[in-house]
Amino acid sequence: MLNETAAGVFTIAVTPFLPDGAVDWDSIDRMVDFYIEKGATGLTILGMMGEAGKLTAEESVEVVKRVVARSSVPIVVGVSAPGFAAMKTLGDAAMDIGAAGVMVAPPGNLKTDGQVLNYYHNTAEVLGDAPFVLQDFPLVTNVVIPTSVILQVVADCPTCVMLKHEDWPGLDKISALRAASDAGGRRISILCGNGGLFLLEEMLRGADGAMTGFAYPEMMAQVVSTYQSGDLTHARDIFDAYMPMVRYEAQPGLGLAIRKYTLAQRGVIAHDTLRKPGGNLSKATKSEVDAIAIRQNTRLKLLGL
Amino acid sequence: MLNETAAGVFTIAVTPFLPDGAVDWDSIDRMVDFYIEKGATGLTILGMMGEAGKLTAEESVEVVKRVVARSSVPIVVGVSAPGFAAMKTLGDAAMDIGAAGVMVAPPGNLKTDGQVLNYYHNTAEVLGDAPFVLQDFPLVTNVVIPTSVILQVVADCPTCVMLKHEDWPGLDKISALRAASDAGGRRISILCGNGGLFLLEEMLRGADGAMTGFAYPEMMAQVVSTYQSGDLTHARDIFDAYMPMVRYEAQPGLGLAIRKYTLAQRGVIAHDTLRKPGGNLSKATKSEVDAIAIRQNTRLKLLGL
Amino acid sequence: MLNETAAGVFTIAVTPFLPDGAVDWDSIDRMVDFYIEKGATGLTILGMMGEAGKLTAEESVEVVKRVVARSSVPIVVGVSAPGFAAMKTLGDAAMDIGAAGVMVAPPGNLKTDGQVLNYYHNTAEVLGDAPFVLQDFPLVTNVVIPTSVILQVVADCPTCVMLKHEDWPGLDKISALRAASDAGGRRISILCGNGGLFLLEEMLRGADGAMTGFAYPEMMAQVVSTYQSGDLTHARDIFDAYMPMVRYEAQPGLGLAIRKYTLAQRGVIAHDTLRKPGGNLSKATKSEVDAIAIRQNTRLKLLGL
Amino acid sequence: MLNETAAGVFTIAVTPFLPDGAVDWDSIDRMVDFYIEKGATGLTILGMMGEAGKLTAEESVEVVKRVVARSSVPIVVGVSAPGFAAMKTLGDAAMDIGAAGVMVAPPGNLKTDGQVLNYYHNTAEVLGDAPFVLQDFPLVTNVVIPTSVILQVVADCPTCVMLKHEDWPGLDKISALRAASDAGGRRISILCGNGGLFLLEEMLRGADGAMTGFAYPEMMAQVVSTYQSGDLTHARDIFDAYMPMVRYEAQPGLGLAIRKYTLAQRGVIAHDTLRKPGGNLSKATKSEVDAIAIRQNTRLKLLGL
Repeated sequence: MLNETAAGVFTIAVTPFLPDGAVDWDSIDRMVDFYIEKGATGLTILGMMGEAGKLTAEESVEVVKRVVARSSVPIVVGVSAPGFAAMKTLGDAAMDIGAAGVMVAPPGNLKTDGQVLNYYHNTAEVLGDAPFVLQDFPLVTNVVIPTSVILQVVADCPTCVMLKHEDWPGLDKISALRAASDAGGRRISILCGNGGLFLLEEMLRGADGAMTGFAYPEMMAQVVSTYQSGDLTHARDIFDAYMPMVRYEAQPGLGLAIRKYTLAQRGVIAHDTLRKPGGNLSKATKSEVDAIAIRQNTRLKLLGL
Repeated sequence: MLNETAAGVFTIAVTPFLPDGAVDWDSIDRMVDFYIEKGATGLTILGMMGEAGKLTAEESVEVVKRVVARSSVPIVVGVSAPGFAAMKTLGDAAMDIGAAGVMVAPPGNLKTDGQVLNYYHNTAEVLGDAPFVLQDFPLVTNVVIPTSVILQVVADCPTCVMLKHEDWPGLDKISALRAASDAGGRRISILCGNGGLFLLEEMLRGADGAMTGFAYPEMMAQVVSTYQSGDLTHARDIFDAYMPMVRYEAQPGLGLAIRKYTLAQRGVIAHDTLRKPGGNLSKATKSEVDAIAIRQNTRLKLLGL
Repeated sequence: MLNETAAGVFTIAVTPFLPDGAVDWDSIDRMVDFYIEKGATGLTILGMMGEAGKLTAEESVEVVKRVVARSSVPIVVGVSAPGFAAMKTLGDAAMDIGAAGVMVAPPGNLKTDGQVLNYYHNTAEVLGDAPFVLQDFPLVTNVVIPTSVILQVVADCPTCVMLKHEDWPGLDKISALRAASDAGGRRISILCGNGGLFLLEEMLRGADGAMTGFAYPEMMAQVVSTYQSGDLTHARDIFDAYMPMVRYEAQPGLGLAIRKYTLAQRGVIAHDTLRKPGGNLSKATKSEVDAIAIRQNTRLKLLGL
Repeated sequence: MLNETAAGVFTIAVTPFLPDGAVDWDSIDRMVDFYIEKGATGLTILGMMGEAGKLTAEESVEVVKRVVARSSVPIVVGVSAPGFAAMKTLGDAAMDIGAAGVMVAPPGNLKTDGQVLNYYHNTAEVLGDAPFVLQDFPLVTNVVIPTSVILQVVADCPTCVMLKHEDWPGLDKISALRAASDAGGRRISILCGNGGLFLLEEMLRGADGAMTGFAYPEMMAQVVSTYQSGDLTHARDIFDAYMPMVRYEAQPGLGLAIRKYTLAQRGVIAHDTLRKPGGNLSKATKSEVDAIAIRQNTRLKLLGL
């Protein structure tokens, strides 16, 4: 079961599809193996990047089953939904199958501190014993969650064990959360998103690792472990070597297609298909990704990676 | 099957619950009978007012079955969803059960004319042969759909047979849509929402009736039929007699609880329960509803109703 | 100087223009006289309905001068601005000219309780001694201000003397604010907007009157005074008689043009011109206003008004 | 006068303040010299980064005078405003003083393609002969402007001579705009914002340069000129060397404070003061900026820069 000590890299997994739009089960297996081989300490599925909204309820459950069966690391399942009934149905199913926890982002209609707090009170009640991750991603959800509200959720809901941090800017928020737990509050795990664009600084502020889907997950594993080993300069070298790609992949909306393109290029998934409705990368975009990858490779060789 | 000639009053139905939160199946039957007895020419279920997001997928299907089995008038099923997979699943199920059509509101992340148009192209493709209602409700969806985009959807998608009109202000939009069909475009049905607050003027502009959930559906049936009979003055008398209540019930968010309170007071549903999370009416609000109802009753008697 | 005891009807004034777009100074004088004659206990100028954004800074100051010079009742000046410098410039000028106070709505980029509170702290500091009205109008500002934040502003800022209440739904908010002052908090004036659509219920909840621009301001004066005299039934009769028009005028965006049309029809302002960019009423809309006005007049005669 | 051939780097200038909040006129002079020395081919003042909303109307005009008097390169003045009267007042004043052109971002309440187009039609009319820059920055304005609307503005408004491009993702948009002008449409200048985060790729897509405020403007000048000289590899080397800082500075909201901190560290402006209300950088943030700057310096030395 997921708990407050979770750390390292929880990779946000894509959902691979065949060219005709069917779920590509074989690629799921290969992808799970790949992520773990590259250093993932956990996987998060059916998140915003997992095209969850394009899966039927049945498919969602089948994907959970397949990933849980294949994985040797804990699985977090995204269960954000417009209503609590759907959240509960998928959450209960996921935990029954063997997920370690679930993740919930707030719906976009929440406007005040009290509404956000109330939403997570209801979430915790609906999810029962399932440990949950609070996803704080205002760029996409349009809901700004102040530090005080996160701390109140942590105080009120023992099953809230992790923050998926992707407020932007958000570094001072990590510092404030850590100051609060240093002062005696319950300390939860903080894993960071934003495509890894601030991973080094996030670790410096007290994060426990990353939870994001950058298509070179080894970067995240290496930055986190090198940082934790105390070699800050080398951690920065690795981080900077990947930065042009991290930046390019972090383009909202486009990022998923870039990520699938890269995973297909790397042989992890068989096809870079997005299920409909989903755009294709332009030829120019693919060229840009290729050019960045070539230079990235050169920099990594210089670092002996 | 729903088509472009649909007219009259499609009542937006609530979903009745028992005090413990279970679906109240007996009240569903009574409610269907009540709406039809009061003049409904159709019913719309699982809309925004139907607490659809609080139902599990299984419950949603059961509600469709129960209502279709009981009803002698056509049923429209709300199938708006964050993803097309869920939309298709419920849409296909509803049509298999015997619904006359489905209704789709746009998701809040659509920003440009092209994105809205593209969304309805995908919707039409996903729904296949099912006739669908385009719900235009910017106050809640935050998506403004210009007249030109509605006309393009109508031109491109033969299965779009009805507009649920609740733009606000929206009267000139009805006029513009009717001018376009008078000039040779395909004419679809326009049924109006907004709680009935502009029903008389909407009819004057060319609407075919109402699709909303005012808890005195006889008002809508009487205004529409009296207007159609040519007695505009009497239609206005009826409309004005109900207006203080229409206005009071039209408060966003609060309206559903007021509606359920009134339906329970009228003996239609057994309880005014909202499924969690859902607020209760304050004592002051109930007093206000009661006071308005008493005066409404007096006015109706003066009109011989 | 405006203070917490302000009550009655503060009419939101339009800014009259000549057909060529110049400010119509003569109509301003006539309008001020008209509002006061119809029972206004104060006037609010340069609000959202005053086309403030279409006036140059110099024109705004001239309008304040003209209205203050003409008026025998206190003047509130809208000074909402994207930045505090502009707010301070107009606020200082208005108070120097002799305004009784100023009004400030929050800018749309405020997201959390703390941000709203901080904004009003800064507002109070910037405005110095000037008494100010907190305008709570989420439908237009997109900023939801919870009761707790309003109470904190009242507690922290002695110069906040009035709430322009137009949250929707907002009746329970009035009750909550009054419960707080009954329990010992500072009691500020609450005048209500929303075009007067809930005026009767707002009085029942504890409001001190209206601050809105309904083009028949005598309705508001009569409802408030009749209510205060204890004749609730007669207050309701008056309120209901005007309701079809109140509802029609309350259409967002369109309302200002309807209001100017009515004021011109009533001979108050010379022209119904909106300064560019501003729409014109369609012929159908004018017909609808006319039809509602005729029936309204009949109802008022029956009431002896 | 600004025209369609504008290219290179138009630096977005800050407005320097003394610790007491007064405008720091001496630092303005030094800043203008610095930007030009570092390769600026133009300057843009009173933009979002210029704290324009915190200046009085008089101060804004004085800043324009000071910068125009000092500068040997063309000046663009941001004149975005909630109303056209304020836009016209500042726009006319700026052009009279000697600005080369003005810049206008759309207000956040525009929702449809037609509303955006109409807004720029009005803008062009209000501004008269003044050449204007269309600022396309959805992340901040919340207005998404499709390529088709930009092309229509270009077709309809001869005084629209430049696009400040900062849609995100926006690279394919540049390609589409260039394809349209290659096919015979009027070609306008495209200068790119987003803090320079995609400058290299933007040049590859057909942009004419940058218009953004990265605190090392030499990066932009060098990338643009090196790219134009044909040495793509060296352009990428320079671009990549600065990327960790570009990324860090691009944090929304925080970016301005980081920028002023860096400009003060570099001796360009005397103080890193933000006028109230404006946050201060945390100690941790300053440390992060310092650490990134040190490594950046090392990389630049390796490149012989």
